Amino acid sequence: MEKMSGNNIPEKTIERLSEYRRTLLNLHKQGITHIFSHVLAGMHGITAVQVRRDLMLIGFSSDTKKGYDVEELIDFINRILDSSEPMNIAVIGMGHLGQAITRYFNNKGLNLKIVAAFDVDPAKVGTTIEDIPCYSMDDFETDVASLGIDIAVLSCPSRVAAELVVPIVNAGIKGVLNFTSKPLNFPLGIVVENYDITTLLEKVAYFVKENNEDNNEL
Amino acid sequence: MEKMSGNNIPEKTIERLSEYRRTLLNLHKQGITHIFSHVLAGMHGITAVQVRRDLMLIGFSSDTKKGYDVEELIDFINRILDSSEPMNIAVIGMGHLGQAITRYFNNKGLNLKIVAAFDVDPAKVGTTIEDIPCYSMDDFETDVASLGIDIAVLSCPSRVAAELVVPIVNAGIKGVLNFTSKPLNFPLGIVVENYDITTLLEKVAYFVKENNEDNNEL
Repeated sequence: MEKMSGNNIPEKTIERLSEYRRTLLNLHKQGITHIFSHVLAGMHGITAVQVRRDLMLIGFSSDTKKGYDVEELIDFINRILDSSEPMNIAVIGMGHLGQAITRYFNNKGLNLKIVAAFDVDPAKVGTTIEDIPCYSMDDFETDVASLGIDIAVLSCPSRVAAELVVPIVNAGIKGVLNFTSKPLNFPLGIVVENYDITTLLEKVAYFVKENNEDNNEL
Repeated sequence: MEKMSGNNIPEKTIERLSEYRRTLLNLHKQGITHIFSHVLAGMHGITAVQVRRDLMLIGFSSDTKKGYDVEELIDFINRILDSSEPMNIAVIGMGHLGQAITRYFNNKGLNLKIVAAFDVDPAKVGTTIEDIPCYSMDDFETDVASLGIDIAVLSCPSRVAAELVVPIVNAGIKGVLNFTSKPLNFPLGIVVENYDITTLLEKVAYFVKENNEDNNEL
């Protein structure tokens, strides 16, 4: 998926801005006020040139003799990435993955807020999991509308993923993060990120194999 | 992270090959013998040109009047992505995410095999979780060596991630898939993929915001 935003910021830069911000928030918590581009770069395993290019793209240029002002840069990235109102998120499928995601995001102080979980398991519906109320899939469309949900995270079994496309469209959801192994297509205007973790693992395995073969050739 | 393999196949192509293969295996299971590039493309939300370019890069060219031979293409991708021996994987941290990953990969018939889990929780050590034996972190380096583990998946709490770098290097692990929110650097020769799911969610949220703003301008 190759996306470009209205601001002409490439997708990969958006990813890195999210990563920089997480690092900067950590540094800020530790009382660090300034950071050089090469230090920030090193913490992410990339070059200083890449960091500077990304920050130039978003128009951040206040590099001082002590490096970037951490707080100022966080504020700047916030203005790029965050919408003015927090976005509401629903997690569909509260198995291990859904619970891991929910636990992970809760209380992270993000501009993204998991407000609901959905499951078909009667043992889960009506309870709260990680403090998030779990709703039945039966009333999905009306519940999503009344809760004002913007984004759905799919952590349900892959075999049911395709059945969710129409309810998601009908419910007015604007973004989908799909962790199932079934890639999904949505109509224009709905953002979808298909991310099967198998792909990540197969990619790591491929590059390990390539490294091994390079070493055998020496 | 921008990687190129010895075969000069870009990282993004490797990702898509993994995705194509998963789709092709599904089609094969359903008895489908041939597929056109535009159909395969449509199933992944990309263009037929992209599919053809990827397959050209790996030297696959046997396009017939009925499209690609599904079985032949699977075999071809297998030869690119897979090593001759299955790779052994250890999952470090058997909380919800670790369990989700383990359940997910078990019995998938992949060339990747989760053979061990590691945790610090005495209640988990010595048991099996999803049929995978759970070992203590105390003997991590010797256990990894004796089990012949190639790849580590990190699903432990982010605050302990940095402490794992030295043991992972010492144990001779060749690839790391890091799901914690702490990006890790490893010496040359060890492949690392840092994938914090926060990044994915923040990216989807950003493009939803951009879409909303575009609509408001109309």
